[in-house]
Amino acid sequence: MSEKLSIVMFSGTADKFIPLGVLSQAAGAMGMQVNIFVTGFALLGFTKKKNELPFPNEFKNMAPALMEGMKKSKVQPWDEMLKEAKKFGAKIYACSMMSGVMGLTKGDFGPLVDDVVGAATFLGMSEGGQVLFI
Amino acid sequence: MSEKLSIVMFSGTADKFIPLGVLSQAAGAMGMQVNIFVTGFALLGFTKKKNELPFPNEFKNMAPALMEGMKKSKVQPWDEMLKEAKKFGAKIYACSMMSGVMGLTKGDFGPLVDDVVGAATFLGMSEGGQVLFI
Amino acid sequence: MSEKLSIVMFSGTADKFIPLGVLSQAAGAMGMQVNIFVTGFALLGFTKKKNELPFPNEFKNMAPALMEGMKKSKVQPWDEMLKEAKKFGAKIYACSMMSGVMGLTKGDFGPLVDDVVGAATFLGMSEGGQVLFI
Repeated sequence: MSEKLSIVMFSGTADKFIPLGVLSQAAGAMGMQVNIFVTGFALLGFTKKKNELPFPNEFKNMAPALMEGMKKSKVQPWDEMLKEAKKFGAKIYACSMMSGVMGLTKGDFGPLVDDVVGAATFLGMSEGGQVLFI
Repeated sequence: MSEKLSIVMFSGTADKFIPLGVLSQAAGAMGMQVNIFVTGFALLGFTKKKNELPFPNEFKNMAPALMEGMKKSKVQPWDEMLKEAKKFGAKIYACSMMSGVMGLTKGDFGPLVDDVVGAATFLGMSEGGQVLFI
Repeated sequence: MSEKLSIVMFSGTADKFIPLGVLSQAAGAMGMQVNIFVTGFALLGFTKKKNELPFPNEFKNMAPALMEGMKKSKVQPWDEMLKEAKKFGAKIYACSMMSGVMGLTKGDFGPLVDDVVGAATFLGMSEGGQVLFI
């Protein structure tokens, strides 16, 4: 397998970071080139300053049981999964436009973020592969 | 047309099951191989024990009119659309990791679910086709 | 670059229209054929009669700062970005089934909408390219 998986990570609720981690790590382990473009509210998950990511209101009552289940199943936190994905070569880019809108510069992002780039640059990277919008 | 459409079904609000059904049935009817990977809150829609799927809070006030419109337009319920898709060969897989986290085993899922598999297995199936994240 | 980017635009919260505009305009400028299939609550953004699109409840408190940031960064409104995308050849289609369910006909949509078509027609157009579900 030598395909590419590119992910536009837009959603900022805590639950969506789980499939981001799982899919990125699995694709990386399978030899796919993974490119993640972080934009919108999802940028809040990648800053040095830790932000509490909200749980979707519709499923808030399930959050404690889910957290408990993840601990029992020994599921890694999403940022650990992304670290694993990066060992396989995954790249994570913050959207330059939305970073600007939210007053964030490269120095505000934690070590998971490789660079701050524009949407056109990301689309160029994703050429010929699969793209997901989370 | 002999393409593949693979869908990661993560969202658990009732509205998102409509495009899941419509796209799967349409793609199946067009001869595309449809693979659906159900994970996260969406697993609640596929258990034998019926769960009430919540409507997104932001559009709750529109729910009654929409339900009425769907009846008038004779739109099939989403699970009927998936049954049709399965007649065309669509396959539906529950995510093994999130099933475990939520305390669900294969016997807990209704007849729409073909198997319980991991994300890597699903990514392997989706190779070379289009992928959607709903 | 001569690829296709097809977008199923389903979400109806105001925030999701920004990546719709940005990705469509960037892809169009890069020479990609952009096809947008508007369905579900997102149809509310394309009617002649202006509907106030809700902000997601989980991030409501960030809305004023974001709007301010977009003004400062001189980010165009999403419909202006789609107008630019259309100059590059982007096409926007309203979903016939959901239009019917919501009591909308072609005359109810603003000039951004090129036509009202079914999901199968859209899937046929998207063949061989990338597809996003927003």
